Amino acid sequence: MMEELLQISPNHDPHGGGGGGGGGGGQAGKEQQAAGVGILLQIMMLVLSFVLGHVLRRHKFYYLPEASASLLIGLIVGGLANISNTETSIRAWFNFHEEFFFLFLLPPIIFQSGFSLAPKPFFSNFGAIVTFAIGGTFIAAVVTGILVYLGGLMFLMYKLPFVECLMFGALISATDPVTVLSIFQELGTDVNLYALVFGESVLNDAMAISLYRTMSLVRSNASSEQNFLMVVVRFLETFVGSMSAGVGVGFISALLFKYAGLDIDNLQNLECCLFVLFPYFSYMLAEGLGLSGIVSILFTGIVMKHYTYSNLSQNSQQFVSAFFHLISSLAETFVFIYMGFDIAMEQHSWSHVGFIFFSILFIIVARAANVFSCAYLVNLVRPAHRKIPPKHQKALWYSGLRGAMAFALALQSVHDLPEGHGQTIFTATTAIVVLTVLLIGGSTGTMLEALEVVGDSHDGCLGETYSLGENFERNHTYIAPSYDEEESSSGNRFKMKLKEFHRNAASFTALDRNYLTPFFTSHNGDMDDDDFDDQTPPSSRSGFRGHG
Amino acid sequence: MMEELLQISPNHDPHGGGGGGGGGGGQAGKEQQAAGVGILLQIMMLVLSFVLGHVLRRHKFYYLPEASASLLIGLIVGGLANISNTETSIRAWFNFHEEFFFLFLLPPIIFQSGFSLAPKPFFSNFGAIVTFAIGGTFIAAVVTGILVYLGGLMFLMYKLPFVECLMFGALISATDPVTVLSIFQELGTDVNLYALVFGESVLNDAMAISLYRTMSLVRSNASSEQNFLMVVVRFLETFVGSMSAGVGVGFISALLFKYAGLDIDNLQNLECCLFVLFPYFSYMLAEGLGLSGIVSILFTGIVMKHYTYSNLSQNSQQFVSAFFHLISSLAETFVFIYMGFDIAMEQHSWSHVGFIFFSILFIIVARAANVFSCAYLVNLVRPAHRKIPPKHQKALWYSGLRGAMAFALALQSVHDLPEGHGQTIFTATTAIVVLTVLLIGGSTGTMLEALEVVGDSHDGCLGETYSLGENFERNHTYIAPSYDEEESSSGNRFKMKLKEFHRNAASFTALDRNYLTPFFTSHNGDMDDDDFDDQTPPSSRSGFRGHG
Repeated sequence: MMEELLQISPNHDPHGGGGGGGGGGGQAGKEQQAAGVGILLQIMMLVLSFVLGHVLRRHKFYYLPEASASLLIGLIVGGLANISNTETSIRAWFNFHEEFFFLFLLPPIIFQSGFSLAPKPFFSNFGAIVTFAIGGTFIAAVVTGILVYLGGLMFLMYKLPFVECLMFGALISATDPVTVLSIFQELGTDVNLYALVFGESVLNDAMAISLYRTMSLVRSNASSEQNFLMVVVRFLETFVGSMSAGVGVGFISALLFKYAGLDIDNLQNLECCLFVLFPYFSYMLAEGLGLSGIVSILFTGIVMKHYTYSNLSQNSQQFVSAFFHLISSLAETFVFIYMGFDIAMEQHSWSHVGFIFFSILFIIVARAANVFSCAYLVNLVRPAHRKIPPKHQKALWYSGLRGAMAFALALQSVHDLPEGHGQTIFTATTAIVVLTVLLIGGSTGTMLEALEVVGDSHDGCLGETYSLGENFERNHTYIAPSYDEEESSSGNRFKMKLKEFHRNAASFTALDRNYLTPFFTSHNGDMDDDDFDDQTPPSSRSGFRGHG
Repeated sequence: MMEELLQISPNHDPHGGGGGGGGGGGQAGKEQQAAGVGILLQIMMLVLSFVLGHVLRRHKFYYLPEASASLLIGLIVGGLANISNTETSIRAWFNFHEEFFFLFLLPPIIFQSGFSLAPKPFFSNFGAIVTFAIGGTFIAAVVTGILVYLGGLMFLMYKLPFVECLMFGALISATDPVTVLSIFQELGTDVNLYALVFGESVLNDAMAISLYRTMSLVRSNASSEQNFLMVVVRFLETFVGSMSAGVGVGFISALLFKYAGLDIDNLQNLECCLFVLFPYFSYMLAEGLGLSGIVSILFTGIVMKHYTYSNLSQNSQQFVSAFFHLISSLAETFVFIYMGFDIAMEQHSWSHVGFIFFSILFIIVARAANVFSCAYLVNLVRPAHRKIPPKHQKALWYSGLRGAMAFALALQSVHDLPEGHGQTIFTATTAIVVLTVLLIGGSTGTMLEALEVVGDSHDGCLGETYSLGENFERNHTYIAPSYDEEESSSGNRFKMKLKEFHRNAASFTALDRNYLTPFFTSHNGDMDDDDFDDQTPPSSRSGFRGHG
């Protein structure tokens, strides 16, 4: 019956004859009917995904998380459609351009990533997260790019130009937090590990997209002279520019809600309408300026959660949290369904199998290079009791599955690159996404248990929420004073540089506490622990002035 | 339609040059940038509308309600864009097809109409509302159509074929509740008047769209033989079919939420995701079946509010109310901005002035015919103390401004009708929408005060919420027993027919109380007054059996 319904729309002419012959209410009516059937199918798949995901979670069946379930549903429906002869009409309704992705599906997902970041463990691990996200992603992208290029030279796989290899390296280095984190939360993992994995996968999206865009620019300007400095400038332009736009919009929203006096009862709708428009405003502002909207909306999310959110009335706070959670759940589930569907429908040339196989090998190597080298750097400056233990490093290495961001960038690369190349990258990326989501997503529970980072054997478990603040307190009181003790004894210049960077992260916390939070929010102090105020500021602020 | 939305960007080549020349990250990047600027402008206009509307409301300036403010902002920005030379690129971003309207903007608005219907005053005035919405809209459409046709014959205005005149009559008979009702609520009007105006404008959308579709079908099949019976069957097919689909989906959702056991704390997101998908499911189901999605989603809204809503957990109830309110506010404001913008940008041929002028005259006449004749019929069966007073009738006559639905149908008529005809109807409709929104919207406050239906001089004021239930109780206890007394003394057959219809409305209330509510909801009884249960059912149920 479903197939019959879908065969209704054989005519793709968008503005066919105004007169509308025959029964059926004219061309426009028919089109609308076809649109209805397409969207109906999508809604049914969404409902099915939510219900299936819920049933699996309720029965504690961690081998098939929600994202994997959505992907499988997409694969199955796509496969069924492929077997029947209706593929063209169904395809037409699923064949979104990458712009639909970038304008409507990704913004809520990315905003929610930033918005749901728990500020305390995030900021207490800020140095490590930035190291993994910025340095680590750069390493991973370059290592993957070089390996893929060498693989091409050695005829192991499809040969791509070096710049395109780096583009592929950049896009495939964007890890996805969704699946792994839902399992982390369910099982209750160490709070620092959770913050690392979450923070890294959120921020490395921004890094990956900036790298991808920079490489894309380098490629399109390949004829003109290029030097390494220009590339760096371009990258900083994209990354810092987008970040500033996002943070700026976030600050503006905080001030608006602080002074507009909307947090009285009967204005909840107005308050929420405005709040909901800001993220999209940030996104579109960055896109309009030629920057990256994704990076911008991510930082808007972080800033809005940290400052604007506390200026809302209580009801609106509850509402916007639920709202963004809802919207991003829908978008995310839809993305996974669509990926599954697309993979089932695509005409895959099996010459790509070699490319896929070696890419997977290479990204495993690249992720190892990323995680272990960055963890080494971080551990250099951390005191003994706060070093990242090897099993956390392994968990971090393992949890690098690829999701919506890699898929979206690959979708864009089909348009950016010459025909065969973009298609190869797209096919490889979708395959990698499916494999990592199904395999890594399905085995994360087992892995976490094998590494013994799960359950209540650790004092800082996510399951026990009270330990979050406690843990943070210990970390935080550590960070600020430690440098003054250790600085003189350290002769290593590199190590000092690292510590300086770390100190800046700590002094940022102080800056936030003393200037930003009072300036941008109306509820000063009641969201933070009061006992910090007299401890940290003096030392860290002076440190900031001395070395910044 | 998503593809169409995306093709709006200046460059219509969907897979523009793979190479991507020049700076800016290739064609896709540029397109995305243009998209960003367009959407950025729209978001800024939305924010401005909300802020301006809020400021005006706070200063109790009722001459420019929110809808009028949005319309004016659209007019001004459109005018500015028209003066500057950028119109083509801006236009390209505002030029949505009617499908965007029908698939994304109208569904939330219409669903919210049904969802926000207060069930008690609505059901206690059910007979009158149905009379106005079904009979009255039919009268108004036919009267307008005939007058426009006669006007064309007498060379007063552009001459249209008779069927197209009826289509125009149907689409222009859809009244909009938004502006008038916000003022009603602000000022506190008689609860029965409020229920009449709201109920009528909600249900007459369904009637108008069904009539329009039927006429559109008649037109496209004009060559083959048609009889009046066929037209009636077609109309019933659209109206009753869509209504059944909507009610059916609503009932399914009620049962799902009753038995799925999702109303426990940590499943709020899942619960809300599913709840939010149902209206759209209903809409798309109806469209897929070739029925009217708008009519279907309206009844889904009414049913979901009445049954499904009470099966949700408390938090989810709050959330979904706020969610639909938010989404519909955004869509509504956007529709009014867009209408203003479109009118400013459109190349209007001033030959339409005559058509506009006489159309306005005719719709005033047609609305009078609608309101006063239906009020006469309703008053025939109502007892003395419940008759609709003349000043309520005048308020009802006055409050018939035209909004999103008329505009959307006119937009569709451009595609349904031959070139000049559709364009004329569209121009006339947009002009009528703007004039009625600005004039009627701006003067509703003054009118209500002049008619003395405002303030607390009346016992059943909206301002005093406690009187709602009280009022309903009185009405309800009246409705059920009254017929048995009066039936024998009435010799007039027509009057009896009317009463029978009225009785069915009353027995529907009993059916709902005794069978539907217990079956479809889990919280039986706690939302209704208990003292009904032993009074009404026997008499009204037996009446239902005897005459149904």
